Amino acid sequence: MQLNAGCELSFHAQTPTPLILMLRPRSGAGQWIIREEYQINPAVNVTEFTDMYGNLCQRVVAPEGPFSIHFSATVQTADIIDTAPGAPYTPVEELPDDVLHYTLPSRYCQSDQLGQLAAQITENVEPGYDQAEAIRKWIQESVKYQYGTSDASTSAVDTASSRVGVCRDFTHLGISLCRALNIPARMVVGYLYQLDPMDLHAWFEAYVDGRWFTFDATQVRPLGNRITVAYGRDAADVAFTTQFGAMTLDEMKVWVEAADTDSNESEKKSHDAPTLSSSVGSTNKTMN
Amino acid sequence: MQLNAGCELSFHAQTPTPLILMLRPRSGAGQWIIREEYQINPAVNVTEFTDMYGNLCQRVVAPEGPFSIHFSATVQTADIIDTAPGAPYTPVEELPDDVLHYTLPSRYCQSDQLGQLAAQITENVEPGYDQAEAIRKWIQESVKYQYGTSDASTSAVDTASSRVGVCRDFTHLGISLCRALNIPARMVVGYLYQLDPMDLHAWFEAYVDGRWFTFDATQVRPLGNRITVAYGRDAADVAFTTQFGAMTLDEMKVWVEAADTDSNESEKKSHDAPTLSSSVGSTNKTMN
Amino acid sequence: MQLNAGCELSFHAQTPTPLILMLRPRSGAGQWIIREEYQINPAVNVTEFTDMYGNLCQRVVAPEGPFSIHFSATVQTADIIDTAPGAPYTPVEELPDDVLHYTLPSRYCQSDQLGQLAAQITENVEPGYDQAEAIRKWIQESVKYQYGTSDASTSAVDTASSRVGVCRDFTHLGISLCRALNIPARMVVGYLYQLDPMDLHAWFEAYVDGRWFTFDATQVRPLGNRITVAYGRDAADVAFTTQFGAMTLDEMKVWVEAADTDSNESEKKSHDAPTLSSSVGSTNKTMN
Amino acid sequence: MQLNAGCELSFHAQTPTPLILMLRPRSGAGQWIIREEYQINPAVNVTEFTDMYGNLCQRVVAPEGPFSIHFSATVQTADIIDTAPGAPYTPVEELPDDVLHYTLPSRYCQSDQLGQLAAQITENVEPGYDQAEAIRKWIQESVKYQYGTSDASTSAVDTASSRVGVCRDFTHLGISLCRALNIPARMVVGYLYQLDPMDLHAWFEAYVDGRWFTFDATQVRPLGNRITVAYGRDAADVAFTTQFGAMTLDEMKVWVEAADTDSNESEKKSHDAPTLSSSVGSTNKTMN
Repeated sequence: MQLNAGCELSFHAQTPTPLILMLRPRSGAGQWIIREEYQINPAVNVTEFTDMYGNLCQRVVAPEGPFSIHFSATVQTADIIDTAPGAPYTPVEELPDDVLHYTLPSRYCQSDQLGQLAAQITENVEPGYDQAEAIRKWIQESVKYQYGTSDASTSAVDTASSRVGVCRDFTHLGISLCRALNIPARMVVGYLYQLDPMDLHAWFEAYVDGRWFTFDATQVRPLGNRITVAYGRDAADVAFTTQFGAMTLDEMKVWVEAADTDSNESEKKSHDAPTLSSSVGSTNKTMN
Repeated sequence: MQLNAGCELSFHAQTPTPLILMLRPRSGAGQWIIREEYQINPAVNVTEFTDMYGNLCQRVVAPEGPFSIHFSATVQTADIIDTAPGAPYTPVEELPDDVLHYTLPSRYCQSDQLGQLAAQITENVEPGYDQAEAIRKWIQESVKYQYGTSDASTSAVDTASSRVGVCRDFTHLGISLCRALNIPARMVVGYLYQLDPMDLHAWFEAYVDGRWFTFDATQVRPLGNRITVAYGRDAADVAFTTQFGAMTLDEMKVWVEAADTDSNESEKKSHDAPTLSSSVGSTNKTMN
Repeated sequence: MQLNAGCELSFHAQTPTPLILMLRPRSGAGQWIIREEYQINPAVNVTEFTDMYGNLCQRVVAPEGPFSIHFSATVQTADIIDTAPGAPYTPVEELPDDVLHYTLPSRYCQSDQLGQLAAQITENVEPGYDQAEAIRKWIQESVKYQYGTSDASTSAVDTASSRVGVCRDFTHLGISLCRALNIPARMVVGYLYQLDPMDLHAWFEAYVDGRWFTFDATQVRPLGNRITVAYGRDAADVAFTTQFGAMTLDEMKVWVEAADTDSNESEKKSHDAPTLSSSVGSTNKTMN
Repeated sequence: MQLNAGCELSFHAQTPTPLILMLRPRSGAGQWIIREEYQINPAVNVTEFTDMYGNLCQRVVAPEGPFSIHFSATVQTADIIDTAPGAPYTPVEELPDDVLHYTLPSRYCQSDQLGQLAAQITENVEPGYDQAEAIRKWIQESVKYQYGTSDASTSAVDTASSRVGVCRDFTHLGISLCRALNIPARMVVGYLYQLDPMDLHAWFEAYVDGRWFTFDATQVRPLGNRITVAYGRDAADVAFTTQFGAMTLDEMKVWVEAADTDSNESEKKSHDAPTLSSSVGSTNKTMN
């Protein structure tokens, strides 16, 4: 369906602060950006580059004082996500070259330490799609979703132990457990229609049977209508905002609406900065 | 300044026709895409990829019958283009690796055959920026701008001889003459504010003194407020549309307006397909 | 089989001359570099980069006076090249993104002007592999192989008319005719075992049935045991040496031998520079 | 100077085991590969690709039974590494796009957790080169070098606490402390002349004053004559060998000798597998 999605970020910078943003989705096989709007206030010089994963990144130096970003887009998305029970494991020797590094551990996904747990969860499960789905389901049932229980340093090993977290943590754990079985897995950040409560979201993709499949451990059923903003190994790669200095996020709004229905500004969900600190979004590189 | 620019292309396909489009500009150091809209009618599946020059390319198969594309954007552009009389030639051994291939001949820019002409034009001119400017000025004064005098197979050698052409031909000649002097040069296609008559446009960039400079041999004075859509070696790389089959372009509209003034649809310039055949835009790969 | 192959190039530079070399093959799916040796005399600083096609390029400034390069390698190659009569044409809409640009015309391959000839040659031939093979066979039978009949500016259109040339010309014509049928085609330069007379060699690959196939219009039968040094659109992309200044190639030796047999230096074939000027190898970018 | 360097790895695979190798150095600005030899026994099919950092990676499936690799090269290296006391910090907003990700935390370099330690070590030190050097010196003096004290899961946070480790650990700690100060830092693996005991080695580079500088926390003085094999964020990216299955490394030899002196096979240093487990080299991705 066609979605209107977007976010508004309101910052306050104590000093001029370099900022890397990942807010602009790209058109691709799974989605088409029909319309987009990207405004920065006050107007400052912005440059854009493509990172090693193909994500579009915007660089800006936020001046001292208030600084706000408004991004909105109308995107054609897929109503349903593909599922493929029984789809076979892709042996490592058959993985494409550029998928290989998604088998390796990363900052928040210490797959090298979660092999035993992965083996337990997938005991008697056929290698491939069913393993990834068993992992997703186990997380959905075993980890409690709760804002404020994790922070920017929380890793998959922490979540495997605490059994509580937010979408970012669910995702890191899912990725780590897949990689522990030599199933390539990557983090996706973006928007999900009818996410409740509305927020920027994170989920994961696992590579089986020669292609990527979508898994979301925060949801009971497979939901479509997702807008992908960025891919990466884990949250270190795909922060919506990475700031290098003392800047506070005062307010953040996120919305996803069906484009056909009358767009209604008043429906926009707002949540305040404290919840953001436990969401997928930001990396604070304040220098010590 | 902020520009509202865009184009509408109306095709009619005799059979389903694969099409590669280069219509979506990227934000970068020189421009910022504030808003964009990209519509295809009838709605068909579109994918997008980045080519080897970093341009965004859209792939689509136009179904039999009418097929139209509407692209519009609001872009922050630079009011003036940098000029640097006297800026020195960059020796080949100091060129960045990824600039080197812009010294080589290409389909429409047979720089290997235009060395003598380049030497004549730049006799007694200091190596570097002044050579590129001498070339630009010579073309502007020596080649007559006239629609319908060249076609998709016209190359720089042809134009050096005929002394007539359109922006695409001016650009190919400028590129070839620069490369003949070992000055890297590349083609740029996009929009130019106040171009008369309004059309999709082409110009070139030459690499001197360690950076790219803009040159436009169709204009008497250096004009800013340009929107870059794509870079490449020559028109073979940067066609706005490349079609693989029997499809006619029935109508094309192009507009560039100051965003601050009231946007006025009725001002949109329209020109019919015959002129397009001699403009920068399309490559027809109809199979024989 | 295992091949010992290499070349020795002896230059004399009138002034310090920037030089780009493409002499180092890469290990890949089709070949494995067991051993290699790359010597430059006198020893000067060399840097290496990967171009946009993935080829390794070496940059050096040849000092005034004699300058020589010795490259040799032991390479595991495939004894036979795959052939696939009847393999189907890959429709443009199914081509991988990074193969698409091999359908476009380039400096020496004006495929946009050879559509009629391509249609004639492949009349009544099934689309796909058989078309590429019909083109290869037609060139092999219709174009006379003769040193000294073409030079660095000779293009496919020239050869289609003159019906005489060397491997480079055969290759450009083959590529152009394939592209005229919307079959992606690319130039390959490298070594061929038992080539007679021994020289650096060029051939082409055509993309049908979802992969690249090797075609060599200079040979009666399909011959294996090839070492690929570089890929590109045409000779502008894959010159073994590209020089930017006044430098003469005084002598050039090329050899390819079975590694199992005793390597015999005295067997090395030598040919003098005039023949090189009509072979695949060099681009002279002497500034005017 | 010219170095002869290489390694021999002898494995035994219980089952056919996919293996990714990073053993082939690339010629570049800092080093020139004059000669190389890469043998695999028994001979099996090998492919090679370039990873996202530009490193050459070899893929192979080791058959059941003994499997050995012999790599040797003659490389021209720089005798001394550049040092630049007082060279200024490069502000984040001035970092090249492709350097930015080296400011982020990674699997073994949790820079987000080591800010306080970095601030302590560099108190009253000028931002830039001197900070990186203070970090290097602090590690060299504060962390004890001892084989067998760490393993493949040991991270910078662990080493900051234990104060003991091998070159890999020294490197991870150095990288993390630099990144905590927003100085981009990356891991380098390769060979070091006169390393004692001889082994495959790891060190780090920090980006200050617009370029990369070499730092080696395992050495008292800055030593040149290094051969770089691969770059990456940390050991997860640059393992010499990454195996996906049950395979033991039975023996490993590493050597680095001056090429001018007579090469003497008997001088080759040998050390057994247990030490390898604590060195930079291998990642074991045995599936659970």
